[in-house]
Amino acid sequence: MSSTNKNDIMVSRILCLVSMALILGSFNMQQKKKIIFFGDSITEVGAKPGGYITMLQDTLVKAGKSAQFELIGAGIGGNKIYDLYFRMDSDVIAKKPDLVFIYVGINDVWHKKTYGTGSDPDKFEKFYNRIIDRIQAGGAKVVICTPTTVGEKKDFVNELDGDLNKYAEIIRTIARNKNVELIDLRKAMVSYLGTNNNANTYNGVLTLDGVHMNDKGNRFLANQFYPYIK
Amino acid sequence: MSSTNKNDIMVSRILCLVSMALILGSFNMQQKKKIIFFGDSITEVGAKPGGYITMLQDTLVKAGKSAQFELIGAGIGGNKIYDLYFRMDSDVIAKKPDLVFIYVGINDVWHKKTYGTGSDPDKFEKFYNRIIDRIQAGGAKVVICTPTTVGEKKDFVNELDGDLNKYAEIIRTIARNKNVELIDLRKAMVSYLGTNNNANTYNGVLTLDGVHMNDKGNRFLANQFYPYIK
Amino acid sequence: MSSTNKNDIMVSRILCLVSMALILGSFNMQQKKKIIFFGDSITEVGAKPGGYITMLQDTLVKAGKSAQFELIGAGIGGNKIYDLYFRMDSDVIAKKPDLVFIYVGINDVWHKKTYGTGSDPDKFEKFYNRIIDRIQAGGAKVVICTPTTVGEKKDFVNELDGDLNKYAEIIRTIARNKNVELIDLRKAMVSYLGTNNNANTYNGVLTLDGVHMNDKGNRFLANQFYPYIK
Amino acid sequence: MSSTNKNDIMVSRILCLVSMALILGSFNMQQKKKIIFFGDSITEVGAKPGGYITMLQDTLVKAGKSAQFELIGAGIGGNKIYDLYFRMDSDVIAKKPDLVFIYVGINDVWHKKTYGTGSDPDKFEKFYNRIIDRIQAGGAKVVICTPTTVGEKKDFVNELDGDLNKYAEIIRTIARNKNVELIDLRKAMVSYLGTNNNANTYNGVLTLDGVHMNDKGNRFLANQFYPYIK
Repeated sequence: MSSTNKNDIMVSRILCLVSMALILGSFNMQQKKKIIFFGDSITEVGAKPGGYITMLQDTLVKAGKSAQFELIGAGIGGNKIYDLYFRMDSDVIAKKPDLVFIYVGINDVWHKKTYGTGSDPDKFEKFYNRIIDRIQAGGAKVVICTPTTVGEKKDFVNELDGDLNKYAEIIRTIARNKNVELIDLRKAMVSYLGTNNNANTYNGVLTLDGVHMNDKGNRFLANQFYPYIK
Repeated sequence: MSSTNKNDIMVSRILCLVSMALILGSFNMQQKKKIIFFGDSITEVGAKPGGYITMLQDTLVKAGKSAQFELIGAGIGGNKIYDLYFRMDSDVIAKKPDLVFIYVGINDVWHKKTYGTGSDPDKFEKFYNRIIDRIQAGGAKVVICTPTTVGEKKDFVNELDGDLNKYAEIIRTIARNKNVELIDLRKAMVSYLGTNNNANTYNGVLTLDGVHMNDKGNRFLANQFYPYIK
Repeated sequence: MSSTNKNDIMVSRILCLVSMALILGSFNMQQKKKIIFFGDSITEVGAKPGGYITMLQDTLVKAGKSAQFELIGAGIGGNKIYDLYFRMDSDVIAKKPDLVFIYVGINDVWHKKTYGTGSDPDKFEKFYNRIIDRIQAGGAKVVICTPTTVGEKKDFVNELDGDLNKYAEIIRTIARNKNVELIDLRKAMVSYLGTNNNANTYNGVLTLDGVHMNDKGNRFLANQFYPYIK
Repeated sequence: MSSTNKNDIMVSRILCLVSMALILGSFNMQQKKKIIFFGDSITEVGAKPGGYITMLQDTLVKAGKSAQFELIGAGIGGNKIYDLYFRMDSDVIAKKPDLVFIYVGINDVWHKKTYGTGSDPDKFEKFYNRIIDRIQAGGAKVVICTPTTVGEKKDFVNELDGDLNKYAEIIRTIARNKNVELIDLRKAMVSYLGTNNNANTYNGVLTLDGVHMNDKGNRFLANQFYPYIK
């Protein structure tokens, strides 16, 4: 065999390996689903150490699935539906996600009281629908969530419970109308608190302050989201 | 017997009857319990034809008890706990009632939204306690009521349900602490609506507009109050 | 000359006149500038008999300019910046206007108090800028207005004066930043009331209720807009 | 002269001095005017080191008048007119003051926005009048103050300026109607800021945060109150 032949063989082998690497790489890249969590402060903190998105990432690692999913937090404190609408292009669609979780609504209710700038129910629904339309048009699947709590007391005696229930209903209606999957976080959390908030405290069971999650609350959220990461 | 004597006897007999009538009358007047309904627009309308206080009056007539009770409406539209506090001397205590029903709280919650001038929970409780103290010091028995509704929808999805539940809880606590009787109107009405509001409408079951009573609502209230008229 | 010839000549003359009329008509139609007034209840009423847009139309007729301009009211009661944003495509851009007046902001402030759903200042500015961008991209010129009043009292003692001044400032800043023309309605109206509201009443000078225009108020607005109709 | 006599003389002299001291002391105690500052957080902080009441005390010391006046801070953060009403007996009248400054109103306006629990203008006036009546009936002179600021910007562009102006007007009316002295703090402060807030900042001229006083602000308040300490 001539050295030329050997070289040819080596070159072809290298090319073959490179090709395989590229193929595997592109395969990998095509396989890794990009998942964006689009929301408010709970999601902003959720992407930090100890947060629910970080916990989901750890769970994926343990399950040997971390190569399949890329989780991206896109939460900003104080955000309402209008804020999500305003930044959906830059913060979500431009990143070409495969799956987007929308988890918003607490500030839409809460800011009525604290700033006088909550969201009207009809406009909440209209802008929410537009966000879903636009993200779906960008090629991603959308899963939407009901808002959790402002106060953990049982039997709906927290000041904003009525309005949170009302906006949760709006979101359930959107899910039905648009035929998108729903994670009913509020229902799940109210049910959990009904069983576990024995001292009937305003905070301290799943949240630090009635709204933002403690360790248990982040774990609770991670468990709620996990089945939808697929 | 001379006719003069006969006349004298007749006169004395008449005088005797008149005296007895006067004595019985004064006895009756002393016996007639004065009952004041102290509240907001629901009570203001309640004292008009078709209102719950007027219905109670009719019921007392039918039961042959109208001579025993005098019912007085002291409701003014838009009133909150501060308004009751401000006018308790002139509108309640000055009238020397035997029994006072206090039925307030809806505007304390509602005005947070519509004017930004609702009542702080702690001050609601403080002023409520002072009103009870003052009326009791004036010699009357006090019976207190939880606030009814702003919206008749089931499952606590009316915007203000959480806060109404919260203020109802405050009133229940006041009743326990002060050892006064409680008519839990909110509990009764929510229960009734749970069974009867089949179309889950915002209004039209017991209320005209979610707040103010229709015929059925006034009848409902009358039935709630009746056992406490004694 | 035969009658046929005469007829031919007449027909050709008629055709000629008809053609000229059609040409002039189409010329006129191409010349007629489409002007949309985009706003809230003041503008909704403004397009009705006695309203400021109707007055502007009359003024154009008297000035012999009615053939040059088509005035269209696009006001809806209760509208805030979010509502304008939501319906700008259907109600403004789809009509291919040449000039658009935007007159909004009162409800953005007022609804903070009456519903808890006013607009945050930062989002008011962001959505306002987007509306301008989109309408300009559609080929129309934009002229923007500061909000008028909620209460006509002098010396800024009306409850919402501070916030209305603040949002007027935001709009002035937008006008500078975007280099669009500004009709400073608030400044003009406050100045007028300073001189003319001698009894210092809450309403009745230019408005019916502190907000919505009476005859004088509609005339006042018409005079403010007229110089910009060109 | 015997030693006994000397001792007697000494004893009588000592007794005489002690008596004089006691007389002077009691004279002093009778003379020392008790002055209470009744208000909210600005007054609560005002009684601490660096606060306006502490500054007034220092000024009295320097002027050699500290023996004539006792200054007492009775401010509690977040207080509205209802809070002052509720605690006037325990915190003011029970201390038998000679002079009471009432400086309240900011939270009555501010809490409309931040909690939905501000004070209605009519009830603000009613309860204010009752507080004046009760304190005057307790034997003290009352001097009342207009509320200062929430935001230091010029030309009334701070969100709450209109409502603060409105409540300042209510207080001026109360002063006229009740014929009590008025310290028009708001007018003085707005005037000062008009001249001195050159950069037109929201805070940092007289306040830390638009509301609570910095060193200059406490000095400004002390200068406003000083002429009324007599």
